[in-house]
Amino acid sequence: MALTLYQLSEKIFELEKQGKKILRLNIGDPGLVTPDALRNAAKKSLDAGETRYASAQGEKPLLDKIASTHGAEAQNVSVTPGSKWACYAVLQLMLKPGDNIVTPAPFWSAYELMAKSFGAECRLVKTEMEDHFQFDPQALFELVDAKTKVIVLNDPSNPTSTEYGAESVKAVLEYAQDQKILVLLDEAYRDLSFKKNELMTYQEGLAITTTFSKAYCMSGWRAGYLVADADVIKKVVSLNQITFTNVPRFTQAAMLEGLTRREEVTGATRNECKKRLAACEQVFKGIQYARPDAGFYFFPKVSDGDSITEKILEQGIAVTPGSVFGGYKQFIRLSLSHPLEKLTPALQTIRRVIDENA
Amino acid sequence: MALTLYQLSEKIFELEKQGKKILRLNIGDPGLVTPDALRNAAKKSLDAGETRYASAQGEKPLLDKIASTHGAEAQNVSVTPGSKWACYAVLQLMLKPGDNIVTPAPFWSAYELMAKSFGAECRLVKTEMEDHFQFDPQALFELVDAKTKVIVLNDPSNPTSTEYGAESVKAVLEYAQDQKILVLLDEAYRDLSFKKNELMTYQEGLAITTTFSKAYCMSGWRAGYLVADADVIKKVVSLNQITFTNVPRFTQAAMLEGLTRREEVTGATRNECKKRLAACEQVFKGIQYARPDAGFYFFPKVSDGDSITEKILEQGIAVTPGSVFGGYKQFIRLSLSHPLEKLTPALQTIRRVIDENA
Repeated sequence: MALTLYQLSEKIFELEKQGKKILRLNIGDPGLVTPDALRNAAKKSLDAGETRYASAQGEKPLLDKIASTHGAEAQNVSVTPGSKWACYAVLQLMLKPGDNIVTPAPFWSAYELMAKSFGAECRLVKTEMEDHFQFDPQALFELVDAKTKVIVLNDPSNPTSTEYGAESVKAVLEYAQDQKILVLLDEAYRDLSFKKNELMTYQEGLAITTTFSKAYCMSGWRAGYLVADADVIKKVVSLNQITFTNVPRFTQAAMLEGLTRREEVTGATRNECKKRLAACEQVFKGIQYARPDAGFYFFPKVSDGDSITEKILEQGIAVTPGSVFGGYKQFIRLSLSHPLEKLTPALQTIRRVIDENA
Repeated sequence: MALTLYQLSEKIFELEKQGKKILRLNIGDPGLVTPDALRNAAKKSLDAGETRYASAQGEKPLLDKIASTHGAEAQNVSVTPGSKWACYAVLQLMLKPGDNIVTPAPFWSAYELMAKSFGAECRLVKTEMEDHFQFDPQALFELVDAKTKVIVLNDPSNPTSTEYGAESVKAVLEYAQDQKILVLLDEAYRDLSFKKNELMTYQEGLAITTTFSKAYCMSGWRAGYLVADADVIKKVVSLNQITFTNVPRFTQAAMLEGLTRREEVTGATRNECKKRLAACEQVFKGIQYARPDAGFYFFPKVSDGDSITEKILEQGIAVTPGSVFGGYKQFIRLSLSHPLEKLTPALQTIRRVIDENA
């Protein structure tokens, strides 16, 4: 199975287009419809006729709200179609052919696909389940050279849902500031952390991104943002202008409503994630895994992730093999992306396949 | 005024954020709210909870509908956030540093900004108002060399709203097929043509794009599509996956509704464009211009486009200087992007500024 994360995901959409019924535990979202209040905000904006071109940076009220959340100013913010675009734009700005980025693995392999598309390399600091997937900052620094332009931290991490220690993150930030290397901190799952939900405070040389796909259940909308140095934002806005142009105003209205109700909305998603994780841990008793610090991925150890993934697909359930997250062939990633009534029987099926192939 | 098309547009948004009241005749849309039926389709989709991640290529019913419109198959189609993304993606796929694209001017300078962002050059075949801005195919072919990867035709043209002759387009298609050069045909304004609204039939080696921003009044939504060879589409979908991910399903619902009511919706916009153009021609009697073949730009000749643009801005009206469309310094572009009650007095003000600076 030499498919990338996305080829795999598109293959599942293909099978569905052909009429196959597949329970998708491969999709990185909580599997909940966007809360009513957010959808209503968008509908109200549509009713108000907010349907024309808008600023490529974002609407002022939303920029201000995001800025205040991160201790930054509006000039440090750009609204983006998902945090993925923010990552792509930052990497495009920073990378030339021959450059590299460094990040701990297992990792969200989109970073590597993006880097490669700019002729750059992605260097991985491997971490182990036995260490709760924590990285050694020193080992990371040893991979850095003159061609390293960005250190990427995805914290909490996709696919493990574990959080990096505050000490390690601090060490990276200090080292990077000293070496004048940009740190891209992808906080897509921060609002789903069971330990600490505070979003990172902006500081110079740091690019923070988050998404509304996860905790706000807005994956299909394409809603996220970037907080970074004003000159980085200026360049990102220039790229926005020649690519997607703007995030729709009605989408931004839903985002603003979400941020205004942040604790209510993200808290509800987080609680649902906790419930699902508890059920999952019941089913997977006796299987090895690092206990997630956040929603909604589960990354158990298996005999052979690629073949188990195929066997699970034969049962009508899509999961993702660990091989696409940096060569973790003895793992599979389950996205707990359905409510319990659908999720629990699916997890039991997966457990059975794992046991049959132990 | 060394600003690009988009820096200029963002500057106007900035002035507005500061509270300045500006009538924007610089924005490339018809200035109408999206028709009710289309907004309702989106709201219905939101109500149905179609808010999760979707295919990076597009939803099957919409792909099929677009394909049938262009005599193609679903595998030849990708739904994109505007036709701009389609252009960007095609150019990114085709261009390496040192390559070039060729296109007639005056032209939508986004093509050049995109090409430059990939280290490629944009070569212009200049055309003249006196020739109704028609290009000489032979002059275009003379600019082609081994590094030419794409010929771009924007027909009808932004900023002139003139159409290229069918003979010229045919000559380019035949030449390009013979030379194995991709033709990117940007039909953003086709549905607003006063002469011929038939969208181009797909053929091998041709990439056709259009947008819902103009005739469907959906500029802020970011809705468009690409029709091209299946292998081009595959690569575009891979790029979609690591950038914007998907066009929202509720946006695609509005697009599908629009295509289903194509003649009703685009006909209404076209008629409105005709009315505005008639009013505009009244106001600009005695001024030189090539008569538009389509909505909704007006490209009159003036003494000095840059300084006239600034003087018009002092009157609270934003227009675009011809210099950003390939060095047409003796022109300005007016987007007839407001209903008559606002448009007519603004046009009269512009006419006065032009006369005062003749």
